[in-house]
Amino acid sequence: MTVSTPITAAILVIGDEILSGRTKDRNIGTIADYCAAVGIDLREVRIVPDEQDRIVEAVNALRAGHTYLFTTGGIGPTHDDITADSVAAAFGVSIDVDQRAVAMLLERHKPEDLNEARLRMARIPAGADLIANPVSKAPGFRLGNVFVMAGVPAIMQAMLDSIGPTLETGARVLSHTIEAGLPEGTYAGALGELAKAHAGVSIGSYPSMTSTGFTNRIVVRGRDPQALDAARADVEALVARLRADAGA
Amino acid sequence: MTVSTPITAAILVIGDEILSGRTKDRNIGTIADYCAAVGIDLREVRIVPDEQDRIVEAVNALRAGHTYLFTTGGIGPTHDDITADSVAAAFGVSIDVDQRAVAMLLERHKPEDLNEARLRMARIPAGADLIANPVSKAPGFRLGNVFVMAGVPAIMQAMLDSIGPTLETGARVLSHTIEAGLPEGTYAGALGELAKAHAGVSIGSYPSMTSTGFTNRIVVRGRDPQALDAARADVEALVARLRADAGA
Repeated sequence: MTVSTPITAAILVIGDEILSGRTKDRNIGTIADYCAAVGIDLREVRIVPDEQDRIVEAVNALRAGHTYLFTTGGIGPTHDDITADSVAAAFGVSIDVDQRAVAMLLERHKPEDLNEARLRMARIPAGADLIANPVSKAPGFRLGNVFVMAGVPAIMQAMLDSIGPTLETGARVLSHTIEAGLPEGTYAGALGELAKAHAGVSIGSYPSMTSTGFTNRIVVRGRDPQALDAARADVEALVARLRADAGA
Repeated sequence: MTVSTPITAAILVIGDEILSGRTKDRNIGTIADYCAAVGIDLREVRIVPDEQDRIVEAVNALRAGHTYLFTTGGIGPTHDDITADSVAAAFGVSIDVDQRAVAMLLERHKPEDLNEARLRMARIPAGADLIANPVSKAPGFRLGNVFVMAGVPAIMQAMLDSIGPTLETGARVLSHTIEAGLPEGTYAGALGELAKAHAGVSIGSYPSMTSTGFTNRIVVRGRDPQALDAARADVEALVARLRADAGA
């Protein structure tokens, strides 16, 4: 039996505007969906302010513990865009205006419009590969296992599409959702026993509120289709039995 | 002049369902808005899976560095709800069924329906104060500077409303938004100079995309109304001058 090493990832969202509530993040959900679809285990997310020491600390903590680290935000032309410099500092490498990035900016801007501020967007740490930005040209970059992307969701999505084929991926996590149609407390004990019996499958119970009360869904997730089907069958049988008991 | 200590906070979101993309978090934005409204500096957010060692590590890292830590998720009746036990482990205190919490559950459930699974929701670490849950009764709790709340947004909101009056708050951060009406690259350099000149005020530039292209907004934020007004006036004058130059 081959035991494959799981491919893991973390996300670092950089930006005062998320922490102040002014901007509601949408990139975490997009990247989480992407990772799930290609079999990458997203294991942690952090959001930190536009402060170099905080960014450096988080980049180094997260890149060490995961196959990949995806960052979003802080790569524009203004003074509060300090992600590229912070990532360079985290890796201990130099950073300067990169002529490959300048060439990309020239696809959008006239040479005379490439002022000092716009050239900030061409500051790339030494040794990095660029990530194309089809929307507004200013590139992201990959340094080691860290992918630095824009915060604007449409640009982040385009960059993610671009780097996707370069990522090592794993077996896709399959999932089945079972509508419980019962209060969580009526099945929680028996479900816990099933979770122990199906250790290779993850079983979760997720309540949500609707205008008529709680809707509880049980989700079984796993990479082995046969193990997943066995767990699903047991959960469905449990729910059917309890619903019959309840006269539901 | 009195220098007040800033009141800071962090959020810890606990749940596989957020990392798998299945559930899109809405609590971070709600808590961020709340903190901004009452003058608490939200400084960091982390999302971790339903794994005790990861929760313990994050709780201890975040409670040490901030006035308050707010957690969401993982306090239901099922086997994957391990937040209370993990927080007890983080603090090194015991945890057991708490009769105050049982009394709350009995407001919703008949005594004969309080099975072992539902009693999990009454497991409260020693020394904690309870946080009432007007929606479904199962309480959250406060232990030290850590507030443990539900993951279901409507319940989290109710718990936040309930603990709000108990929190130490700071001077509210005031903000003004200026529509730039210009590409970021045209004002980024001058805006950076203004940011240096108004060091007590935070000046950020936030692009967003609309169907017609980028909309750039400059946001000035600060607690001192006079300093804020001065920065705002300078930013507005800058934007007016550059727009005139551009014939906009």
